[in-house]
Amino acid sequence: MSLPAATRPGTARRRFRVLGIDPAVAGATGYGIVEFEGAVPHLLRFGALKLPTRATFAARLREIHNLIEKLVVEFAPDAVAVESVFTALNMRTALRLAEMRGVVLLAAAQAQIPAHSYSPREVKASVVGYGAASKQQMQQMVGSLLGLSSCPEPADAADALAVALCHAQAAWARDRIAIATGIRTAAAAPRIRTRAARV
Amino acid sequence: MSLPAATRPGTARRRFRVLGIDPAVAGATGYGIVEFEGAVPHLLRFGALKLPTRATFAARLREIHNLIEKLVVEFAPDAVAVESVFTALNMRTALRLAEMRGVVLLAAAQAQIPAHSYSPREVKASVVGYGAASKQQMQQMVGSLLGLSSCPEPADAADALAVALCHAQAAWARDRIAIATGIRTAAAAPRIRTRAARV
Repeated sequence: MSLPAATRPGTARRRFRVLGIDPAVAGATGYGIVEFEGAVPHLLRFGALKLPTRATFAARLREIHNLIEKLVVEFAPDAVAVESVFTALNMRTALRLAEMRGVVLLAAAQAQIPAHSYSPREVKASVVGYGAASKQQMQQMVGSLLGLSSCPEPADAADALAVALCHAQAAWARDRIAIATGIRTAAAAPRIRTRAARV
Repeated sequence: MSLPAATRPGTARRRFRVLGIDPAVAGATGYGIVEFEGAVPHLLRFGALKLPTRATFAARLREIHNLIEKLVVEFAPDAVAVESVFTALNMRTALRLAEMRGVVLLAAAQAQIPAHSYSPREVKASVVGYGAASKQQMQQMVGSLLGLSSCPEPADAADALAVALCHAQAAWARDRIAIATGIRTAAAAPRIRTRAARV
């Protein structure tokens, strides 16, 4: 796959948009769009899709598909990043969550956008620095990286933004390796620089 | 949900169409459409979607969604029946299969068709009479119930037809219970009668 001009390694101030998704079976599905301009992240949108408790699973699948379709049309992200299923969950919950993830992956595939999965530990390790970080630590770090005065609310949205930031870090690493080895990857993106570091 | 006239309990020679799906991660995804006219099953279509080994998972999700969309438009089934994930699979395979199932459930939800899941043991118990039946026994029984001179090929398609037959049996049982208790269910369907029994 060839890279769009805006994401080619070496292009000055290249822009790269990531849609992060944190799917949930019963609770709210978090989402967040982050644009990287050069190495600097800009928060474009975040939120959480909360459906009534009595909503059927079929309705949840449909609504999540609709949500991603709309976000893709509005923001045209270069990549979708989604949390993988935490395998220590009980089997029934894990399978339900995987069914929901399937719909997220489908929506990305239908829009021809590459989708990347990261485990909760990978996300924490990438954003905070260690995989056993608490949820609160991660949310604070997400706020800090995005230059916000407080943590993004609700927590589901912060989790989705964390996956997006994690993907950018991973893509940056793959990009550097690709440059070093002469092989390009589709996930190329700049390393995140904190807002504080810009000043 | 109110029942369509054709599936209301007590309607003479009511028709009821079931789309059975047996999703597969690496192999072929089987599908089959069975129409029940009164108690008699008629085979309308069966087959298996086989993609090149090198097809990405994203492409597989997209193709399965396309397939179900097309079958739904062509046959307007009253119900979708799909195999649930066999929990003895290794976790990675089980989660991949669940992601694929999510896409099947989404396609049904988008077409406003109720989807029902059955475990492989339930399917065997319903179609053959016991849950530990061999794959071959089940395929022979599927052929026999549908009045075919040989087993439907490939095996993935036979599995999908088995899920459709299993759903009809389950729906019939629910229907009888509903009549007995005065409560209607959306899954009402007639009991399968074998072709041999008609003669």
